[in-house]
Amino acid sequence: MWTLILNCGSSSVKFAVLDPASGQVRLTGLAEKLGAGAEHAPPGTGATIRFEVDGERQHRPLTSGTYAEAFDAIGQRIRTLPDPPSIGAVGHRTVHGGTRFSGSVLITPEVLDAMRECIPLAPLHNPANIAGIEAAQAAFPGLPQVAVFDTAFHHTLPDVAARYAVPDTWYREYGVRRYGFHGTSHAYVARRAAPMLDRPLEDLNLITAHLGNGSSVCAVQGGQSVDTSMGLTPLEGLVMGTRSGDVDPGLHEFMHNTAGLTLEQVMTALNKHSGLKGLSGGLSNDMRELEEAAHSGHAAAQFALDAFVYRLAKYVAGMAVALGRVDGLVFTGGIGENSAYIRQRTVERLGVLGFHLDAEANANLPRGTRGLISAPGSVPVLVVTTNEELAIALETLRLVTGDPEDRPALTEEHPA
Amino acid sequence: MWTLILNCGSSSVKFAVLDPASGQVRLTGLAEKLGAGAEHAPPGTGATIRFEVDGERQHRPLTSGTYAEAFDAIGQRIRTLPDPPSIGAVGHRTVHGGTRFSGSVLITPEVLDAMRECIPLAPLHNPANIAGIEAAQAAFPGLPQVAVFDTAFHHTLPDVAARYAVPDTWYREYGVRRYGFHGTSHAYVARRAAPMLDRPLEDLNLITAHLGNGSSVCAVQGGQSVDTSMGLTPLEGLVMGTRSGDVDPGLHEFMHNTAGLTLEQVMTALNKHSGLKGLSGGLSNDMRELEEAAHSGHAAAQFALDAFVYRLAKYVAGMAVALGRVDGLVFTGGIGENSAYIRQRTVERLGVLGFHLDAEANANLPRGTRGLISAPGSVPVLVVTTNEELAIALETLRLVTGDPEDRPALTEEHPA
Repeated sequence: MWTLILNCGSSSVKFAVLDPASGQVRLTGLAEKLGAGAEHAPPGTGATIRFEVDGERQHRPLTSGTYAEAFDAIGQRIRTLPDPPSIGAVGHRTVHGGTRFSGSVLITPEVLDAMRECIPLAPLHNPANIAGIEAAQAAFPGLPQVAVFDTAFHHTLPDVAARYAVPDTWYREYGVRRYGFHGTSHAYVARRAAPMLDRPLEDLNLITAHLGNGSSVCAVQGGQSVDTSMGLTPLEGLVMGTRSGDVDPGLHEFMHNTAGLTLEQVMTALNKHSGLKGLSGGLSNDMRELEEAAHSGHAAAQFALDAFVYRLAKYVAGMAVALGRVDGLVFTGGIGENSAYIRQRTVERLGVLGFHLDAEANANLPRGTRGLISAPGSVPVLVVTTNEELAIALETLRLVTGDPEDRPALTEEHPA
Repeated sequence: MWTLILNCGSSSVKFAVLDPASGQVRLTGLAEKLGAGAEHAPPGTGATIRFEVDGERQHRPLTSGTYAEAFDAIGQRIRTLPDPPSIGAVGHRTVHGGTRFSGSVLITPEVLDAMRECIPLAPLHNPANIAGIEAAQAAFPGLPQVAVFDTAFHHTLPDVAARYAVPDTWYREYGVRRYGFHGTSHAYVARRAAPMLDRPLEDLNLITAHLGNGSSVCAVQGGQSVDTSMGLTPLEGLVMGTRSGDVDPGLHEFMHNTAGLTLEQVMTALNKHSGLKGLSGGLSNDMRELEEAAHSGHAAAQFALDAFVYRLAKYVAGMAVALGRVDGLVFTGGIGENSAYIRQRTVERLGVLGFHLDAEANANLPRGTRGLISAPGSVPVLVVTTNEELAIALETLRLVTGDPEDRPALTEEHPA
């Protein structure tokens, strides 16, 4: 069944048409600069849509810059493909399901209502996801639509991992807890790692490190998430491209008192001007650029890499405690799949946990391929390529065609 | 040389008279409810001072509730001791030395100026410390006075451990970095652990866990701090009595947006109503009370203990990564020395790092004594009783009588 996968942000839509059974991809693309005022943008600066078919790219401008126009363009492009695929379902990447969604769901009015309830938890992402779903329902009437939540995989977190040591009313009344993100990717690479280790997923304790512009680690026990580094929001945990990850909880007040920053200004800085970018003195949030600069002797770039690795290695050790026994460490995501340097430096820090690198295997692993990079006798270290579109398509297929009993229901209970 | 040790808080002074060479203690005590308005308090609720000599306690009210009155009372009590000790120096426990103090210092006007510069880093503690020093200089004229900073031991943190992934201007212009606290205790117990392990401190990689109403862990490599869990402020890191330790950096904004709390209200909650107290539903911040309640079936008390242990074990693993090799884990502080239950649960979580408990040795270790509690073949786990007064007295003695070359100078460089 051909599925259309949509990832609707506040000003962009990433999309793909693929067959989850075969993995075949017919179309991918990106609509950008959508949203309010897009139709009044000066020529050449407004909304655009880009299609990629068999490695060939086409761009064209959009006039109104609405989701509706973008979806109309996608529908048209699908119909003009040679031997046009008949789309059987739409799968949406959705960010924050709060405690209401313990898995993917067929979208109903009730589901949209529950997603609206989760807006305070993801004030930037959820409104865009909801608007995208509504526009897609109008553009592709009659097709079943599925929401696949970034948080859902982590609904199995035990309370010791999920709860913060804050007033318990904050948890019960406002849902303050660790939700975790990147769930689709962590779940997918854990599943893919099992056959590489020749053991069933159910028997495996894995640590998965999804490293991209956003990064998180996850402790996966028998296929279930038992701890992860992102929390209430996607800001907690590792050093990211422009996000700080962990800071002292007294930092906000300190910057308010000493630098006169408002809470909003602190949050903008922690989200947009921190992480690798902040540590490198504003040089870049891009790992490749930083590696090149560090290689050329840029001290701040080198320090940003060092700090990234140090935080990551410490978090891997924390996940090892969560699991009690570790059967493998999995690198994935843009950085995890492509940076042999970051993998090498990280594993070298983890000798105390029984990890030892096969430096040659690591250095020689072609970009974008999977493989084993640990030395004999080490706890296995793997590189696994993630594929969130395929994972969402598989979930969509399962929800649309599967046994209804397999469909995780909307969770009735709220933390309150 | 008899030394008077003073720990001046905003409304209290803890004090002791002891001889660092012999460890002999002649007097200890606490003045409480000091400060503005103390002289107008209703009868029985105002400032008091308590003396303890040879296990016998005396209380008496103070009338003005100033530091001056408290120090005058302490001076009088010393003079009325049998065979009154002649005080040779005053040692002050001081909280935040920022990057200006890499060790203890003889107090001069220049030192007080530098401490004033550090007030933004410890707006509650440093003003009280400074006021206490000035009052002690007036009360005990002619005696050398020494400041022993809680942060100084951590001045050796490498940048990867000290820096947050925030805009680098925050570091350079405002001194945003990890400072760490409890330094006197971490340094003291690491030194005391070395002979118990029959190895020189210089060769040892130790993890020290100071667990009290405030708690922190420290990675001590060859006697030097290389990482620690408290940060810019004493709020970061472990679950504490009423302090949250780590939270998502997005929490402040979330509580502002959803519950309408001001930043100040969030900070009060994270400092005073969180930690064990928050997790136990407000029941208690006291570990003994929580253990008793948990034992009687109080689910929230049990959960608070579970969360405390889980966070602690994860942090120990992070410190193991910082060290690369671990030669011992040291428990100290009120909880670390006295709670066999917390020690047991924590070590049980650390099998993945080669720690294994001798459950009997742990359970039978008398409260307030030191000893080995790990099984044969385990990385050693020790209980070491801390003694911050003695550590401060030793530092005071060293500064007052030692080779001037041993005296760490005021650091000239500022992060700017």
